[in-house]
Amino acid sequence: MKLLRFGPVGQEKPGILDADGNVRDVSAHVADFAGPTVSLDELEALRQIDPASLPIVNDPGRIGSCLANVPNFFCVGLNYAKHAAETGAEPPKEPIIFSKASSALSGPFDPVIIPRGSEKGDWEVELGVVIGRECLYVSEADALDYVAGYCTINDVSERAFQIERGGQWIKGKSAPTFGPTGPYLVTADEVGDPQNLDVKLTLNGEVVQDSNTSDMIFTVAQCISHMSQFMKLVPGDIIATGTPSGVGMGMKPQRFLRPGDVMEVEVVGLGAQRQETTAAE
Amino acid sequence: MKLLRFGPVGQEKPGILDADGNVRDVSAHVADFAGPTVSLDELEALRQIDPASLPIVNDPGRIGSCLANVPNFFCVGLNYAKHAAETGAEPPKEPIIFSKASSALSGPFDPVIIPRGSEKGDWEVELGVVIGRECLYVSEADALDYVAGYCTINDVSERAFQIERGGQWIKGKSAPTFGPTGPYLVTADEVGDPQNLDVKLTLNGEVVQDSNTSDMIFTVAQCISHMSQFMKLVPGDIIATGTPSGVGMGMKPQRFLRPGDVMEVEVVGLGAQRQETTAAE
Repeated sequence: MKLLRFGPVGQEKPGILDADGNVRDVSAHVADFAGPTVSLDELEALRQIDPASLPIVNDPGRIGSCLANVPNFFCVGLNYAKHAAETGAEPPKEPIIFSKASSALSGPFDPVIIPRGSEKGDWEVELGVVIGRECLYVSEADALDYVAGYCTINDVSERAFQIERGGQWIKGKSAPTFGPTGPYLVTADEVGDPQNLDVKLTLNGEVVQDSNTSDMIFTVAQCISHMSQFMKLVPGDIIATGTPSGVGMGMKPQRFLRPGDVMEVEVVGLGAQRQETTAAE
Repeated sequence: MKLLRFGPVGQEKPGILDADGNVRDVSAHVADFAGPTVSLDELEALRQIDPASLPIVNDPGRIGSCLANVPNFFCVGLNYAKHAAETGAEPPKEPIIFSKASSALSGPFDPVIIPRGSEKGDWEVELGVVIGRECLYVSEADALDYVAGYCTINDVSERAFQIERGGQWIKGKSAPTFGPTGPYLVTADEVGDPQNLDVKLTLNGEVVQDSNTSDMIFTVAQCISHMSQFMKLVPGDIIATGTPSGVGMGMKPQRFLRPGDVMEVEVVGLGAQRQETTAAE
């Protein structure tokens, strides 16, 4: 299934994309896609519904983030070797984990707002993983059994806020609109192997990131298993699994986001995003 | 008001402590204390209810964390000068921000579970701040207007996981039960000045932390204002505002949590906690 949320900010309704590309309104069956509603059990219940029985939404309007009110918006850092190199870092020996404020979540086509004082806004296309079952001390072999689905994420970052402002990365990862997520939450059964997905990002039409999840240092299963040694993952948790090379801070000279820049962001098979940047008021 | 949650894990009901120390069941008026339900507007509506009109709970049983499903569980690092010194760090020039997994939240009297592989479990009494209104780009002068209330927090930490496992602190802050919070969410009007509260923690009856929030490097107002330059805070967000000196990693020799240790944790006026430690299964 491809799940999505449509409607104005804060008033989104849940929908399912049918085989013909129509959005079907599923709000009679689920209030929203958030937390427990994307548990594996709930998804199985949704799967029993015939999409043809749901009303077609002729004009869905704005598409929101494919999940709301996530319990945690986790990220894996430096998970592609060439990206680690371009930032000047050694490839990590184990997954680096950090988080974004959950209020950074935004729709895949919403403008990305460059925060006040920002000089070093940057882009990061990533495979997003959504947890579907409570997950603590799981093995790598079992880890993918805990995944509800996958989505495209732009882990928008402000490098000065991230690196030059006091030691932990969260400050540079958390501004409003720094987490375009979706358009679809694609359930795991439709994705198959998460380690064979093309990831790409264009800036003003120019391809700047172009890689494949097969280049990850730590697989999705390894990241989930590793994280579950330190914390309990819960349904609705997002894990952005790291970005490949081609970010602005790695360019020579460095290049950062300016108002009017356009990012097109895609994990192929999970749906494409497009964001224009604007300056904060 | 002193708000609390009582009942078995996952089935807590919301309550109010009345002037005589009775727990009153307020579940007819609010489903739970979580996110939007602790907005300033919702708290004002609760304030209009005469506690005497609510049923007394004669045996509330277990007390849960005073908030559920927090949007974010933020922390401020190294916010007392003597604590920074005991960890070997310089006092920070601006607030250090990091987060705990929201699944770390636990009740103030629940056992603290030492995770598998842990050798360096540690304690941190902290003043917790709960946000009551969306908060972005606020001044220090206005910052306290965004606070719903305050609570006692033990920011339980695993120093090896925090410092020796790949760069960001979240790994050492996020295990289940690493966030005892409560017993009460005390609304801001009852607390008055948040910079004049005694904070203390005893380990097996011995006082190990004993300070006052007047010793913070960055005040609550400064922390909120600073964070709001980087992210939008939302109702229900918790900010643990840093711990004073006296943690185990600062002792000579260092001392860490072992099964059977008992922590008593208090921000005076906000209610005391007590946790016994056990080993993870």
